[in-house]
Amino acid sequence: MELLDKLNWRYAAKAMNGETVAEEKIEHILEAARLAPTSSGLQPFEIIVIKNQDVKEQIKPVAWNQSVITDCSHLLVFAAWDTYTADRINHMFDLTNDIRGFKNEGWENYRQMLLNSYPQKDAEENFNHAAKQAYIAFSQAVIAAAFEGVDATPLEGFDPAAVDEILGLKEKGLRSAVMLPLGYRQEDKDWLVNLVKVRKPMNELVTVIE
Amino acid sequence: MELLDKLNWRYAAKAMNGETVAEEKIEHILEAARLAPTSSGLQPFEIIVIKNQDVKEQIKPVAWNQSVITDCSHLLVFAAWDTYTADRINHMFDLTNDIRGFKNEGWENYRQMLLNSYPQKDAEENFNHAAKQAYIAFSQAVIAAAFEGVDATPLEGFDPAAVDEILGLKEKGLRSAVMLPLGYRQEDKDWLVNLVKVRKPMNELVTVIE
Repeated sequence: MELLDKLNWRYAAKAMNGETVAEEKIEHILEAARLAPTSSGLQPFEIIVIKNQDVKEQIKPVAWNQSVITDCSHLLVFAAWDTYTADRINHMFDLTNDIRGFKNEGWENYRQMLLNSYPQKDAEENFNHAAKQAYIAFSQAVIAAAFEGVDATPLEGFDPAAVDEILGLKEKGLRSAVMLPLGYRQEDKDWLVNLVKVRKPMNELVTVIE
Repeated sequence: MELLDKLNWRYAAKAMNGETVAEEKIEHILEAARLAPTSSGLQPFEIIVIKNQDVKEQIKPVAWNQSVITDCSHLLVFAAWDTYTADRINHMFDLTNDIRGFKNEGWENYRQMLLNSYPQKDAEENFNHAAKQAYIAFSQAVIAAAFEGVDATPLEGFDPAAVDEILGLKEKGLRSAVMLPLGYRQEDKDWLVNLVKVRKPMNELVTVIE
């Protein structure tokens, strides 16, 4: 399957060469993230795309000084909703009714059920739930990058509060969850590029109940 | 891009017809999940593949009686580690050394850093982190299913504690995070199949910092 070839090709580039990724490729990667399935279709996250070199330079020291932060072409920050609110839930249900052109009783009952549960929950629990949805989109972006021949480095090693501060995310009700620098590998500076990909064997990962 | 075609083709099937998915396709879907990138390469989850109809019947009532639970071919349960332990961390680092055939000082220092942080953290915090990694693999499985022409229904609507009990996950140090029934859509019983896919417009999802 072509997908498996792409997944075997990709790796978490540890050095990038500063080359710019074409906007069309970036658009395809973002479109894959946009199409990701999410719980109740709420898409409870936003994606900050950083092209500005000064902003990348500000983030680098709060991300363990990893060189890919500044040597990437586009730095994607997946930021999840800090909680679920009635406004946010209603917006997506209204959008759905607008796009589909009708109201449906079952769908409206489902809206009420969500309105009666999510906003009353602890914000930290809601953020964790929202962040998981962001990871679904993040994962689709990782794959899309591979299809575009673009290197991408899944990156959790950063201080989320510091990144939120730099990007002004708190004011938007967002919290950074995971990053994805996009660019092109610089093989002569990358300690990982020639190492064998390591994964658990299938029998350690999967249990079949026949 | 072929990937975007597959992402537009897929949807969360709400009714399946009971047809069996070929084992080769299941293997490809699981291989995509196995190849998923995870934090520090720890792959902190397992996948339970349920073919047994009795077990599906037990799960259905604790999953809102959704018909896809019993009408799917294979029910995948992504179960994350309940916490990070020294044994689990050491196992992956040892496996990496075995596969690559050498020990590396930087890698060993990184192992120590993880050993000095994760196991001391709150189990709930660790589970939430592990679950996010499971979602990366889950997302890759969703895409792989689309490439195989197999319908898949991302499914969070279940009682995790009840599913853990049915599958004996607690004894294995696992907690169910998300499910993915795999099978084939039954169009005449599926209220969602002919509805337009709804996603936020790109300008609501993405902010570019030029």
